[in-house]
Parts: sequence; structure tokens; C-alpha cells
Amino acid sequence: MAPAGTQRGILERLDAGEIVVGDGGFVFALEKRGYVKAGPWTPEAAAEHPEAVRQLHREFLRAGSNVMQTFTFYASDDKLENRGNALSFTGQQINEAACDLAREVANEGDALVAGGVSQTPSYLSCKSENDVKDIFKKQIDVFIKKNVDFLIAEYFEHVEEAEWAVQVLKTSGKPVAATMCIGPTGDMHGVTPGDCAVRLVKAGADIVGVNCHFDPLTCVKTVKLMKEGVEKAGLKAHYMVQPLAYHTPDCNCQGFIDLPEFPFALEPRILTRWDMQKYAREAYNAGIRYIGGCCGFEPYHIRAVSEELSQERGLLPAASEKHGLWASELKMHTKPWVRARARRDYWETIKPASGRPQCPSMSVPDSWGVTKGHAELMQQKEATTQEQLQPLFEKVFPS
Amino acid sequence: MAPAGTQRGILERLDAGEIVVGDGGFVFALEKRGYVKAGPWTPEAAAEHPEAVRQLHREFLRAGSNVMQTFTFYASDDKLENRGNALSFTGQQINEAACDLAREVANEGDALVAGGVSQTPSYLSCKSENDVKDIFKKQIDVFIKKNVDFLIAEYFEHVEEAEWAVQVLKTSGKPVAATMCIGPTGDMHGVTPGDCAVRLVKAGADIVGVNCHFDPLTCVKTVKLMKEGVEKAGLKAHYMVQPLAYHTPDCNCQGFIDLPEFPFALEPRILTRWDMQKYAREAYNAGIRYIGGCCGFEPYHIRAVSEELSQERGLLPAASEKHGLWASELKMHTKPWVRARARRDYWETIKPASGRPQCPSMSVPDSWGVTKGHAELMQQKEATTQEQLQPLFEKVFPS
Amino acid sequence: MAPAGTQRGILERLDAGEIVVGDGGFVFALEKRGYVKAGPWTPEAAAEHPEAVRQLHREFLRAGSNVMQTFTFYASDDKLENRGNALSFTGQQINEAACDLAREVANEGDALVAGGVSQTPSYLSCKSENDVKDIFKKQIDVFIKKNVDFLIAEYFEHVEEAEWAVQVLKTSGKPVAATMCIGPTGDMHGVTPGDCAVRLVKAGADIVGVNCHFDPLTCVKTVKLMKEGVEKAGLKAHYMVQPLAYHTPDCNCQGFIDLPEFPFALEPRILTRWDMQKYAREAYNAGIRYIGGCCGFEPYHIRAVSEELSQERGLLPAASEKHGLWASELKMHTKPWVRARARRDYWETIKPASGRPQCPSMSVPDSWGVTKGHAELMQQKEATTQEQLQPLFEKVFPS
Amino acid sequence: MAPAGTQRGILERLDAGEIVVGDGGFVFALEKRGYVKAGPWTPEAAAEHPEAVRQLHREFLRAGSNVMQTFTFYASDDKLENRGNALSFTGQQINEAACDLAREVANEGDALVAGGVSQTPSYLSCKSENDVKDIFKKQIDVFIKKNVDFLIAEYFEHVEEAEWAVQVLKTSGKPVAATMCIGPTGDMHGVTPGDCAVRLVKAGADIVGVNCHFDPLTCVKTVKLMKEGVEKAGLKAHYMVQPLAYHTPDCNCQGFIDLPEFPFALEPRILTRWDMQKYAREAYNAGIRYIGGCCGFEPYHIRAVSEELSQERGLLPAASEKHGLWASELKMHTKPWVRARARRDYWETIKPASGRPQCPSMSVPDSWGVTKGHAELMQQKEATTQEQLQPLFEKVFPS
Repeated sequence: MAPAGTQRGILERLDAGEIVVGDGGFVFALEKRGYVKAGPWTPEAAAEHPEAVRQLHREFLRAGSNVMQTFTFYASDDKLENRGNALSFTGQQINEAACDLAREVANEGDALVAGGVSQTPSYLSCKSENDVKDIFKKQIDVFIKKNVDFLIAEYFEHVEEAEWAVQVLKTSGKPVAATMCIGPTGDMHGVTPGDCAVRLVKAGADIVGVNCHFDPLTCVKTVKLMKEGVEKAGLKAHYMVQPLAYHTPDCNCQGFIDLPEFPFALEPRILTRWDMQKYAREAYNAGIRYIGGCCGFEPYHIRAVSEELSQERGLLPAASEKHGLWASELKMHTKPWVRARARRDYWETIKPASGRPQCPSMSVPDSWGVTKGHAELMQQKEATTQEQLQPLFEKVFPS
Repeated sequence: MAPAGTQRGILERLDAGEIVVGDGGFVFALEKRGYVKAGPWTPEAAAEHPEAVRQLHREFLRAGSNVMQTFTFYASDDKLENRGNALSFTGQQINEAACDLAREVANEGDALVAGGVSQTPSYLSCKSENDVKDIFKKQIDVFIKKNVDFLIAEYFEHVEEAEWAVQVLKTSGKPVAATMCIGPTGDMHGVTPGDCAVRLVKAGADIVGVNCHFDPLTCVKTVKLMKEGVEKAGLKAHYMVQPLAYHTPDCNCQGFIDLPEFPFALEPRILTRWDMQKYAREAYNAGIRYIGGCCGFEPYHIRAVSEELSQERGLLPAASEKHGLWASELKMHTKPWVRARARRDYWETIKPASGRPQCPSMSVPDSWGVTKGHAELMQQKEATTQEQLQPLFEKVFPS
Repeated sequence: MAPAGTQRGILERLDAGEIVVGDGGFVFALEKRGYVKAGPWTPEAAAEHPEAVRQLHREFLRAGSNVMQTFTFYASDDKLENRGNALSFTGQQINEAACDLAREVANEGDALVAGGVSQTPSYLSCKSENDVKDIFKKQIDVFIKKNVDFLIAEYFEHVEEAEWAVQVLKTSGKPVAATMCIGPTGDMHGVTPGDCAVRLVKAGADIVGVNCHFDPLTCVKTVKLMKEGVEKAGLKAHYMVQPLAYHTPDCNCQGFIDLPEFPFALEPRILTRWDMQKYAREAYNAGIRYIGGCCGFEPYHIRAVSEELSQERGLLPAASEKHGLWASELKMHTKPWVRARARRDYWETIKPASGRPQCPSMSVPDSWGVTKGHAELMQQKEATTQEQLQPLFEKVFPS
Repeated sequence: MAPAGTQRGILERLDAGEIVVGDGGFVFALEKRGYVKAGPWTPEAAAEHPEAVRQLHREFLRAGSNVMQTFTFYASDDKLENRGNALSFTGQQINEAACDLAREVANEGDALVAGGVSQTPSYLSCKSENDVKDIFKKQIDVFIKKNVDFLIAEYFEHVEEAEWAVQVLKTSGKPVAATMCIGPTGDMHGVTPGDCAVRLVKAGADIVGVNCHFDPLTCVKTVKLMKEGVEKAGLKAHYMVQPLAYHTPDCNCQGFIDLPEFPFALEPRILTRWDMQKYAREAYNAGIRYIGGCCGFEPYHIRAVSEELSQERGLLPAASEKHGLWASELKMHTKPWVRARARRDYWETIKPASGRPQCPSMSVPDSWGVTKGHAELMQQKEATTQEQLQPLFEKVFPS
């Protein structure tokens, strides 16, 4: 168990060509465990229910993660109090508690602590560059005080806001990663992945990539486009991918939040461990070395990534004590026809049924086409009123 | 926080017409968290990783469970050492640790502790009634010593073995529940659900029903058949259901272990929280009062059961602090089209897409038609050899 | 080319153990060709567009049919003028024209002519036995005058009406076949397939079975139940099956008219030729020797039946000059990857995609539960009024 | 009934802004009726079974077609004798018979006769420009002798061969239409739809567009790209679309012949009449005025096109005497729940189920990536041998 600072840093690892396995998404996993409220998706559990957050960190560590991201997603003050989301903890309390938990578990294994910031309601509401940067600044102050190992600006839909975040993060002197929640068609204003990446690298990001909003293979494809853009511009960077654990072949540019199933009926889309092994291989083959997950990733998904890359990394994760490669543990099943499934080709080629014959395989995504600047995206401290909801309902089911 | 024994017992509650919410399945949930090995499915984590087991108990308690089942599934000595499953804990250590954890968390809320036994490799291998009963006896001794509140004999495919279990459990003087893993066509030898239920009641079970192997609505249907049988026989019992959290419209009599997706590609079949609310309502309407879950149930599934029945129970579970009824928390989402989903009719009627256009919606189950007495079901202490596996592989992919 | 009467009769053939291949459904095929109106489904085309009816007869003959059914479905006077269906031909004209066309084409090959009657609006409207029998009598008079080879009472939902039809048909002295449009759960009043068959045989039917309403494998299953019933009663009969060419796994007792896709969106359910070969084999193995088709069957479907049974029949149909067994003609395709599909195992195991990712694989059938005697089933000569339609619309989409 | 030549010509109609409704595909329709052999797909039925071809022409005329295409698809001498396809008619006999049939039926209504040529095995086998043009020349000679109204060069995968065809057709002095079987990604060598269209117009085509290989909406999209190309180049043309009647969302550039279901398991993909109405509207809105169909189109599909555009055309087709707009004829159905479906909104929004729960909704297309010049595409007079087939089989199922 290494004390803070004695571990090899993120850039040392990536510069050496090592694979860094990220962790999975906390808000979705903890929502299902009962500690996060969908809608606001805020991380007060770090202060409120630390044992639940600690346990999830441990499970990802055990699954092979090299990074413990502080559970500080949407922990900016403007988001914590958005639309009537009354909490009994301040932003600073939450950010500090999250740092302590991440560090505690990171020190139990070979993991670094990454402090994270994400898109803000202030940007969507057209606040000024200074106002938005102040929000990031406040979170960074905690990360510096708690001495995290590096910083991640993640889940940005607009490259402009991501650049601002990177510029603030850079002031810390720590390595900076930046991931946007975009697909192959680029950001909400149509800036291509290649151009986004170039702008982020120029803003100071050491690592660039995408997270959330799309399924693994779509995200790998997007990072490939980023890499091409960066290389074409004669720049250098490391690459990172932290996709959804949901199949999203039917998304448009806004990603899975446009799917009618978001966020409470995504179950049929969850990736299997075998899907994850394909993802890890594709990402690796694309030259991406920081490979993790976002919403929907459970510890066994990260374990599958670690197992797929175990040869390259030279190690199996701790949790593989409870999992044979390619289902070999099924040899111990009491039923002979299940023992017959203890083979790689069986699971590598399976086309799993949904068990839902009255459901389709693809949806038609919402496409409201509103983004930064649109009145419906102005955020507010007060709870959404029934008067505000009614026109939204009407848009979906005209009366 | 009530000390052991001061709580109202399981029969007091059921006799009073109260709803008892069960917990979810530990082996599948903990397999995904990295603490249980599929294949053997044994519960050594109770002794090996108590913090993980404790956390899952807490999440179910928080989701509204009134029962903490000891994590002792397959914790009989013959199963713990089956087919080369080498463990560093004895059966007694595991059973004791599991009792302690269940009690510790039960005491944090309004929950009872139930000690559980399940089908044995010895029965499948045609051991004598005495041999099989001795195995149950050994587990019961721990449950008596640890003073659990009641006992559950669960996951029996053959009514004969279930009767033997009930007979042993009855010697404890504690209330006994008995659930079989059967569907509407009955046990592996074709004994109907009605006849199974009658035999279990006659053997001494106070509560009868089904668990595992089939989806919620199929299980409710099966318990209805049991109830009809018991009532027709002029007997009395309480009823219980703890189904899978997977849709299984394509199963035959053996249930989900015959599905080609078992156990590692069941993801597309996972029920949504809205499916769960329908299940809870159906079960309640069928006169079932002990309503819980088995494999695939995560804490949010149990919370959905608790929320659906909150009016009848007069309370919401603790975890509902992070969940509005019928998605009302989406009113706080930053995106207007997601706020438009904050309504009951939206989620009540959604037909969620699988995101897997190259996969079918139903599978053809394996139907090897082997059960107790068949050579391929004889269990062994030694690891399965490659020579033993080869003929099984051949059966699936003739070379 | 044999003149009428010199051919071996239907019972001679069946008694000798020969296979009799039926034809396909005329109303659906001719609706798609532009000569039949869905809704009334009446056969005025026999008089109005004889060239179109003759051509379809020829195609079925060429595909291997041994029976030309007169195109007299729903050609009873009460049906011809039901609900405002104004026609410029009398029932007698239509019945006579249909007989002439069937005989003309039958004489071009080895086929018999069968005159057919079917369920009547009068029965649904609770007319008396005498009234209903008079309707059948009027059609039989034409069949006798035109000297058809045998008679078929088909498409009956209620065994009582089918018995009445058989009794009338028997008076002709010609062999009588009787098929009901029921599934395994029996007729609209719950009379089982076995009991239906026994009653029909007792009423005088020489051949019994089912037609329409369900897919091939369901129909074969139903005829099996009929056969078991007849044999259990110590009676004797020949068996006949003329199913839909649509997959209907999601039907209830009323069959495909309850499916939301009926009648104008059934396309995705159409059976392939390979599905048809499986059907022919199953029917043959079940001891059924009169094997044909109903709605949805096109000539190539009947050809597939003939090809599957070509060994047993000792001949290939004429249309096989344009079709190799098991796709062997693909050897002549210009593209190599299509030539690679010129093999039996390829087509025998194919799981064809729907190309409709936003559609489900199964529907929820309507289940209005109204049958003979219900006010909504009273038929009328006048066109349905808007006032009559409105409450039906309301039932589906409450305003 | 107008004699040849007295009708208004194709260009007069299109120049006047009228809609011209094409006919449907003959090879697929006649294959199902038993008169065409899949694999070779040659049109000898024109001489061999004229009554069947005449009847199909009549059905399309009745459905509203303004064009009777001569049934001369693949009627070039090199194709007629390709790979052992032994026929008892010469190319000249077939081409002449086809012209006579088309003219006979065209004269029964308001239709023109179009003589058609299509891609040749000679081009695929790298024969010279002169050799390929000679083949077209031979067919044109018949079309001139029989005095067809205009000419169509259709089903070209390579723009170069299409240009050659147009150049030959232009020598006739008759109007020339040219359609390629390409999708939005262009021809087999990657020439874009826009560039293809420009080259065809420059070669002399009066009407350009696409036919076959893709579903209606994909084809409309491709013609839109053609139109943009032509307009950008400052050229002028009329536009034409004759798509498949199969849904093909899963195709690559080679179209439906790459789908594993081609050609004998495409049934689940067949479009409904309502899908066709959407197609007709989309095509019309895109500025396309020659709107017809290709493989899979049955007469009722063309009727649906005619009905959708009946307001614009000022007439309903003859076959609409048997079809109410938007299912209004269902008002005459005997069953009330079917009468309840006599409404536009019901059919406009239906998502029809496949009835095939064990099948996927999309396939993975073959992608052999071979085109003109590749050895496997060299055509031959001799039948394909087993030795030639074996390596193709191996490519699919390696032994």
C-alpha cells in the first residue's frame, strides 16, 4: 500500500506505453444501490453515505482499475442547488469527502486519484466565461488541497466549455485529461471530434478522449477521429475512452439522453462481459491506453476489460479469483449442459435474446434540437413548476 | 434498532395480513461485484469479504426488505467442495459468518433474519434420505445456535427433497417457509405446483411458494396454482414468491438455466423498475404477502416493489429519499425533453428497445431432459476433467 | 387431360394412402392482385375477372395441387350482400362461374374439383338451423349441377354450424371434407378439437381437419388433437390441414383476425419456402395426407410442399422446372457469394431478419371476447354507419 | 384504347409535370408464381408462358402503372446462356415476345411501352467496350423493330457500363432513361450518385435515377443526391426511382444481394401498403416524378403508390374498386374489432410484428468486396462445377 505521491503518475505510465484501466460510472451504479437521485444526479452520497461510495471504489479497484475518480460529478455549486435540489451538504463538504474516500481506497492498491469536473448549468444558461471558470476554480481548490494525482475535465457537450475547464485545471500544475460526451458527428455545435481534440490539446490537455453518451464501439470510433485530428495537426497527446455500458446504435448526436429509455428503462441495452472484452480489444488496437467506463459500468464490466488485457498488462485483477477466463468456472456447475458452456467460442459468438418479444430492437430518439442558448435550457434554482412542465408534456403528447 | 427477538415474527406479520418484502438474490449481485464465483455459486464471501456482503444487506434493507436472508445458499458441505471448488473456509465458518452479518444489518431496521438451506448435490447423486437430511441438519445447527428468526428451504427442483428439508427444519421449532424453483408445469418429475404445495404444507411448511428459475409473472402464476391446490385440499398456508429479475418467456420446465444465455449473457432480459411494480401488484392481487426476489434482483428492484406497495404498507423505504414515485425526480433534469418524462403514463407503457438489432427476442432453451438419477448429474469432489467435458461439448457442437 | 369423372376420386386416393396436395388461399392472393376486396372478402371475381382467377388456379396446379377449390368462399347470398357490399352478380352466377373455372383448369392436369361452403353471417346473427341450412343448400345445388368431385365445408368457428353444413353437404352423395378455423383450444365456445372432430365425423364428414386462422405448425398440432379424439372414439376419418402462410405465435383462440396486423400489415409474418418444407414434413409425419394452404399461400408455397414430399409422391410439380431443390439453381448466379448459398444447410437453418428494427417480434392480440349471439356480431344488409363505427373506435382509442 | 404512338410520350408527360407511375418487378413476382428461375433470373417466360406474363402486366396496369416495361431483364445472349442456363428460346424470340405482350396490355389502358436493357456478364468478365455495346445493340434492334415508346437502361452497378448502354440506346432516337442499382455511397468503384448522374446525363439520358438493390427510402435518398449533383453541374434531367419492396436498413454498398436472406428468405422484409404510401409521398416531395418499383413489388404495392398520389394525378387506379382508401372497406367486415381498424391513424402508425421471436431484426451482410475484374466474377457458358463451388462454400463455413 503506497502513500500518496509515491505511485508512478498517470503520465509516467502512459509515456511508458502502459495500459491504464479506468473505473466505472458512479452515478448510475449508486442510483441502483439507492444512494443517488436520477434527475439531479448529484454526488452528495460521498458525504451522506460514505460506506456505499467506499465499497464501490473498492469493487472497481478489485476489478483492476488504476484510477479512483473522486465522486464529484456535477458537484459544482450551481448544479447542486439547481431546480430545487435541496441538499444538506455544501459543495465543499462533498468535494472533500469524495477526495478522502478515493484516496483511502487508492492507497489499498495500485491506483491514482483523479479529481473531476464536468459541464455546468451556468454554461448552458449562457453565463460569462469568468463565471463558469469560477465554478471550476472552486472545485479545483479542493483537489489541490487534497492533493489528488491528476485532474479530469469530463462530460462536456460544447468544446468551448471544455477548453475553459482545461484552462482552469492547467493552473494546478497537475496532469490534465479532457473527455467530451460526443459521438462521431462532434459537439452540439457541430465541431468535429478532430477539431475538438486539437482545441483541447492546445488548451493544455495531456490526455484527450470521450466519455459517456454512446456505446463502447461508437466511443472508440470517435476517439480514433480525435487521434487522426491531433496527428494531422502535428500535435501529441494520450488517448482515453470511458463509454456507456449500454448499446446505443439508435442514437443521434445528443447520445443516450435522447433515447426514450433514458434513464429508467435502459436495462435491455446493458453490455455483457463478452461485449466488454471486444470493446477493450478494439480500444487497445486503436492506440487508446486509458480505457475505462462511464454510466452503466458495473465492477464486472471493468473486470472484463482487465481480463481481456491481462496479457498486455501482465496481471489479472484481484476479482478474477472469482472468475475464470472465458467462463472456465462453469466446469464446476452441477448441470452438465451448463458445464458444456465452459468454452470461449460459446460466449464469443452468443447473440443474447431480450426475452421481450413485444419490444423493438431500436428506438426513435428524441430530437428536440435545443442546446446552449435555447430558453428551455436556462437553469434555475427554484423547483420546476407544473406550469413549466406542461408545455414539455404537450410537446410529447399533444392534447 | 431492535435486538434479536423483540421484533414481531414472520407469522405474526403474515397472520395480521401484512406485506413482508423479501430481499434480492445475493449470488448474482455479488458475482457482478466480484465476490462470488459463477459455476459453484458458493457463499464463502460471508467469511472472506464480509464488508461486501454487509453492504448488500444494507442496500436491501434501505430498499424496504423486511427479511435479511443469511447468505448461506449452497453452503452445505457437499456443495462447498463439489467438483474441485477448493475453499479456505469450512461450511460452519461460512454459515456462522453469514448469520452474524444478517443479524447485524437486520438490527439496523425493521427486519427479521431467515436461515436458508437449498438443494444438495447429494440428492442429485441419489444419496439416501438420511444422508441428505444430515446435510440440512448440519446447517440448521448453526441457525439454531445463532438464533435466526425463521427458516427457509428454497430452490428445490424435486418436491421429495424439499419435503425432507422441511421435515428437518421443522425440528427447530421455528417457522418454516419452503419455495421450489419450479414453473407452472411442476417439479422435475412432473408433480404439479398444486400437489407440491400440498405435500410441503403437510410436511410442516407454514409458508409455501416458488423462487428463482422463472420471471416474476410466471412465478406469480405458479404460486396461484399452489394456492389453488392447498385450498382445494382444505389446508391453510401463507404464500411467498421470490422470482428472477429476468424475462424468461422462452423457458421450459427447467427454467433459466436451460436458456443459452445462462449465466453470462442475461443482461438484455433484466427487468426495469416499472416491470417490478407490475410484478408487485400482480403478486399482491394474487393473495401473496411475502414478496421478494432472487437472482438478478438489485436493490432498486426491491425498492420498486416497496414503492408499488407503499400505500398498502403505509410507508416508503429509506432509499426512496433518492427516488421519486413514477420518475418525478426527472423534473430536476437539466434537459427539457428529459423533464418531459417525469410522468407515470410515460414509464408505465414504455416498450424498451434492446439496442441489439442482430439478436433475437427469444431463444431456444436447451432441453437435455436429464434429472436426478441420470449419470451426468452424479456430483463429485474432484474437478471436472477434460475427458468429462468433451462428450458434453460434442453434444452441443458435434464435430 | 382427363374429362370430369374419369379421375380417381378423393377417397380413392386417400384410402390408397396417397398424399393429396391442396391449393392455396384465393382471397388473399387475389386481394394483392387487385381482384378481391378485403372486408367483405367475397369472390365475385370468378364472374367479374375470370382470367385472373383462372391464372391463379393454373399456378397452383403447376405448383403441384391435386385439388382446385371452386372460388366460392363467402359466396352465400347473405354474405354477398352483407353491410352494403353491393355486387352486380348474383350468388348463383358467381358459384357457377367458379365451378367452370375450377373444372377448366383441373382438366389440364391431375386435379379434382372441390366445391366449398363456409361460415355464414346468418349463423352469427342467430338465424335458425333451417335458415342456415337453406343457405348451404342453395350453394350445393350449383355444385351438384356442375358436378364437382367432392365438397368442403371450411372456415367454421363453431362446431354446431359446421355440423349443419356437413349434414347438408352429405345429401349430395359426394365425399365431404370439413375443416374448422380453430386452434388447440378449440371452437369459440370451447369445444375441444378432439370433440369437434368426433362430431363432424358423426355428422358424416369423410375428411376432417382445420384451415386458416393459425400458422402451419399450430394447425398440424390441432389436427393431431382431432386425430387423437377420433381414434379414441373408435371412429375413422382422413385428415386435412390448410393453414395460414403467416407466423402466428402470438394468437389467442380467435386466430389471426385478432392480431393488430390483420389484414393489411401481415407481411413480416409470411412464411418462407423453407418454413413450408418443414410444415409439409410435420404434417406428413402426423399422419395427415391432405396437405394444402389457406390465406397467405402463394403458388411457391404450395410448390415447396410438393417438393418436400416429392419422394413420397414420386413426382415433382411442373413449376419445379423453375426451381432447384434446396436452392441448387443459385449455382447459376453471377455473384460468387450467392453461389455459395446453393446448399441445403444454408437455407434449412437461416433465421431471417425482418429489416424492421423499430418493430417488435410479437403483438398483443385483440381479445374482445364476443362471439355468436353478441349484439356486435349481428350482421345487416345496410352499410355500417358512422354511428355504428364510433363506439368501436372508442373501444380502441378512448377519447 | 389507344394504338401505339397516339399516346402522349414519356417526356411530354414529365415535361408537363405529370406523375408517371412505373410497374413492379417481374422476375421476383413471376418466380413466386412459378415461371422464373432464381439464380439465372432470365425472362424466357415471355415466350414460354405468355399468359402468365400478360396477366402480371394487366395487374400492374390495373394498379395504376403508366409504363409496361418489356419483360426483357437479363435477356442479353451472354446472360441467357450463362453458367449452363440452357433455354429453348433464342434471345431474339424472348425479346420480341416480351415486346408484343407489353404492347398488347399497354393498349388496354393509358400506358407506354418501355424496352429495357441491363448489366451484362460480359462487362463483369472484362470484355471490351465494343463487345458489351454489341450486346445492347442486339436488344435495341428488337425494340426499334417493335417500336417501343422509350428505352430504359437499368440495374447497372458500374457507371461506365451504364454510360455505354445509354450511348447505344441514344442511337435509337427514342427517349432514354437510365437507373443504377446503387445506394448513397455510389457505384462499385465508389463514384458518387451525383457524379454517376452527371455522367449519365452527359451520355444522353433524359431521365436518371436508381432501381433495385435498396429499400424505397434509401433509393429516394440516393436519387436526391443524384439530383443535387445534376443541378450543381448546371444540367437538367427528369428523375426516376424504382426501389425494392424490401426493408434493407442493414445493407452495405452492394445492396440486398449481400444480405444473407437473398433471394429465398426475404419475406419478413416485405413492405406493407402503408410503407408504400410513405415512399410515394417521399419520392414526390423529393421532386421525383417517375415513381415505380422493382423486385418484391406486387400489384398492390403499385396500387398503394397510385392511391397515395391520386389527388395529384386526379384519378384512382382501376384496382381501387377493390380497395378503400386507408382501409375503409373494413367497415364491411363481420367482426366488430376488425371494423374498428377502418381508420387511417390505425394503419399509419402500426409497427407490424414479425411473428418470428427467434429471428433478429437486422442481419450482417456478406462483404466479399469483389467486383468487376475479380476472378470470381468471370462468367462462363458452362455450368458451375462442384470444384468451383467448393472454395466458395469454404469461404462461408471453413471446414
